[in-house]
Amino acid sequence: MVTTDICIIGAGPVGLFTVFEAGLLKMRCHLVDALPQIGGQLSEIYPKKPIYDIPGFPSVNAQELVDNLKLQAEPFKPTFTLGERVNSMTRLDDGGFLLTTSDNTSIQCKVVVIAAGLGSFEPRKPELANLEHFEGKGVAYMVKDPETFRNKKLVIAGGGDSALDWTIHLASIAERVTLVHRNESFRGAPDSTEKVFDLAREGRIDLLLSANLQAVHGNGKLNAVTVAGKENVVRNIETDYLIPLFGLSPKLGPIAEWGLNLDKSAIEVNTFDYSTNVPGVFAIGDINTYPGKLKLILCGFHEAALMAQSAFRFVHPNQKLSFKYTTVNGVNTF
Amino acid sequence: MVTTDICIIGAGPVGLFTVFEAGLLKMRCHLVDALPQIGGQLSEIYPKKPIYDIPGFPSVNAQELVDNLKLQAEPFKPTFTLGERVNSMTRLDDGGFLLTTSDNTSIQCKVVVIAAGLGSFEPRKPELANLEHFEGKGVAYMVKDPETFRNKKLVIAGGGDSALDWTIHLASIAERVTLVHRNESFRGAPDSTEKVFDLAREGRIDLLLSANLQAVHGNGKLNAVTVAGKENVVRNIETDYLIPLFGLSPKLGPIAEWGLNLDKSAIEVNTFDYSTNVPGVFAIGDINTYPGKLKLILCGFHEAALMAQSAFRFVHPNQKLSFKYTTVNGVNTF
Ligand SMILES: Cc1cc2nc3c(=O)[nH]c(=O)nc-3n(C[C@H](O)[C@H](O)[C@H](O)COP(=O)(O)OP(=O)(O)OC[C@H]3O[C@@H](n4cnc5c(N)ncnc54)[C@H](O)[C@@H]3O)c2cc1C
Ligand SMILES: Cc1cc2nc3c(=O)[nH]c(=O)nc-3n(C[C@H](O)[C@H](O)[C@H](O)COP(=O)(O)OP(=O)(O)OC[C@H]3O[C@@H](n4cnc5c(N)ncnc54)[C@H](O)[C@@H]3O)c2cc1C
Repeated sequence: MVTTDICIIGAGPVGLFTVFEAGLLKMRCHLVDALPQIGGQLSEIYPKKPIYDIPGFPSVNAQELVDNLKLQAEPFKPTFTLGERVNSMTRLDDGGFLLTTSDNTSIQCKVVVIAAGLGSFEPRKPELANLEHFEGKGVAYMVKDPETFRNKKLVIAGGGDSALDWTIHLASIAERVTLVHRNESFRGAPDSTEKVFDLAREGRIDLLLSANLQAVHGNGKLNAVTVAGKENVVRNIETDYLIPLFGLSPKLGPIAEWGLNLDKSAIEVNTFDYSTNVPGVFAIGDINTYPGKLKLILCGFHEAALMAQSAFRFVHPNQKLSFKYTTVNGVNTF
Repeated sequence: MVTTDICIIGAGPVGLFTVFEAGLLKMRCHLVDALPQIGGQLSEIYPKKPIYDIPGFPSVNAQELVDNLKLQAEPFKPTFTLGERVNSMTRLDDGGFLLTTSDNTSIQCKVVVIAAGLGSFEPRKPELANLEHFEGKGVAYMVKDPETFRNKKLVIAGGGDSALDWTIHLASIAERVTLVHRNESFRGAPDSTEKVFDLAREGRIDLLLSANLQAVHGNGKLNAVTVAGKENVVRNIETDYLIPLFGLSPKLGPIAEWGLNLDKSAIEVNTFDYSTNVPGVFAIGDINTYPGKLKLILCGFHEAALMAQSAFRFVHPNQKLSFKYTTVNGVNTF
């Protein structure tokens, strides 16, 4: 059981900056993200793209911005649960909340900040009979900890950057990696593509192109996959793991069931403090909506700052909030 | 006569970022500031202090942030009128506005963005009989262009950083500089203080400590000042210019007379687009107020982004606004 002042759902840029704004007001934060890494859309969708409209940065790479936001939050010692989705939110008798995740982690907090962006990033799954029976029992849609795969046999499927990058990375950790891709060419970065072809030439991985997953087999646990290749050659590959990396797409998911007022897939808030209709629950960043809303990173930063002022009353009900500029006090006195 | 899409009153951080946000929507900006330099409070009050709450900067010096914001705005080619205060705003028949400054510069525009912070920085003046008769005729409260003073005789008065810095800078431009200060020690940076004492020792400036301005003299134009020094020694100093540098303090000034709804010294706006009660006039940054308002730089950035969306309808009434991420289009296609 994690206990904290504020539980932030979503470790995108807005969730990360919330740690800083909350910290200035002496509130501690725990962040949960369905992805195995922080950074939200920036790290998952466009880590290497330059962004031009972050104030004060004529240009900044998305991942660099995430790294900076993490550094900026560090004085306030945030804690993280990554690779788990928040599935439920219930109110406790003391007015606080209990959140539970897809892996049954429990988090108790006084304030919930939903910074869930376009929703929780969920894997696109291949259509294979009985696939769901092997989820967590050999089928994994993301790599949380590469060590899980040490000296194991893996089949990776996909043709984008994550399939290429993980094939390269895991080639030296796993007993054997087979990469299965339905086309002859890859969508990923040219240098990753080249590296994968090199590994295949050197016999350090097996590469099956113009090939499709057809079936999964096992008894309680995955032990083989069937792959149909060129000219309908069908192969049975013995394996400990199947890792389909067909991309992730965001889904609002369980948040829709928590009694929050929604407008399409966005949570309605007021612009005074970005609070929702449930007292103690705030929604900021891409996930919220109000008249004039723009889905911009810089808007989420503002929303985090105003929200923190109101969150303070839930976390420190008997204290007086005093507003101080950081230039006057620095961050270490907070 | 300057003609532009948007005239921004105030070249502080928020005014500067407005150029960028307007530029993304193909609107051009002219900025006016009462100060001779851009940067607002950051450059005038605390240029060397680190700020910790600009998102993505664990720490950034105030002047460095201003420099970055200027760089970020440059692709959109802003123009500037500095060292002049906007005194009046009148509506034109075509729905636009005509602004005029303290030096009679006229600016015609379709939208007015008031980013005037705590007001226009106005000099604190010494209390001397007839001083106002010599303003612009030998008495100057700020140095707009050092070249004005080449080979002239100057009396500078004050004991803070600007008095010290301008004494050092002008010592090598003017025929003669006399620095008058009411105490024995200075409030400015230690190394500037040291440099001023060195210049005095080397005979390159005259330094009068524990001395006070007593009178100004001249006939249509300033030609001498009277200074009372230690043990009531009274001196008459021949001079072309008197530059009292006793600090600047912000005053709302003429903006109060433009028919805008005010709450104390702040302009009331709505949070949809930070528009005022006068159509086509927006107010953003420290100068505005609304429920939940925080006087933070990062909040002004958000206000600029939302405001620009509505300003677009005034500037390009027949065009459709399409919202695009900068990562997708860069800034040069705008
Ligand atoms: C290609 C592209 C280019 C862009 N360019 C720009 C640009 O130039 N400028 C700009 O300002 N914006 C840009 N954006 C938009 C910007 O990325 C978003 O505004 C920003 O990511 C929003 O941040 P956030 O923190 O609100 O949400 P996100 O970044 O979406 O992060 C939300 C996180 O919450 C997690 N989450 C959601 N639900 C749950 C749950 N139930 N449990 C656990 N975790 C959950 C998700 O997994 C995700 O990691 C761009 C977006 C894209 C896709
Ligand atoms: C010591 C100190 C420390 C601070 N620390 C922080 C911090 O850590 N974080 C933070 O976010 N904020 C901080 N602030 C506040 C921050 O400086 C302001 O929020 C910010 O400057 C507001 O920017 P602005 O562009 O709205 O206005 P300003 O910076 O005030 O600029 C407004 C400009 O408009 C000009 N102007 C006004 N009226 C007229 C007119 N009629 N004609 C021509 N020009 C006019 C003024 O001369 C001025 O230059 C601090 C402020 C101070 C004084």
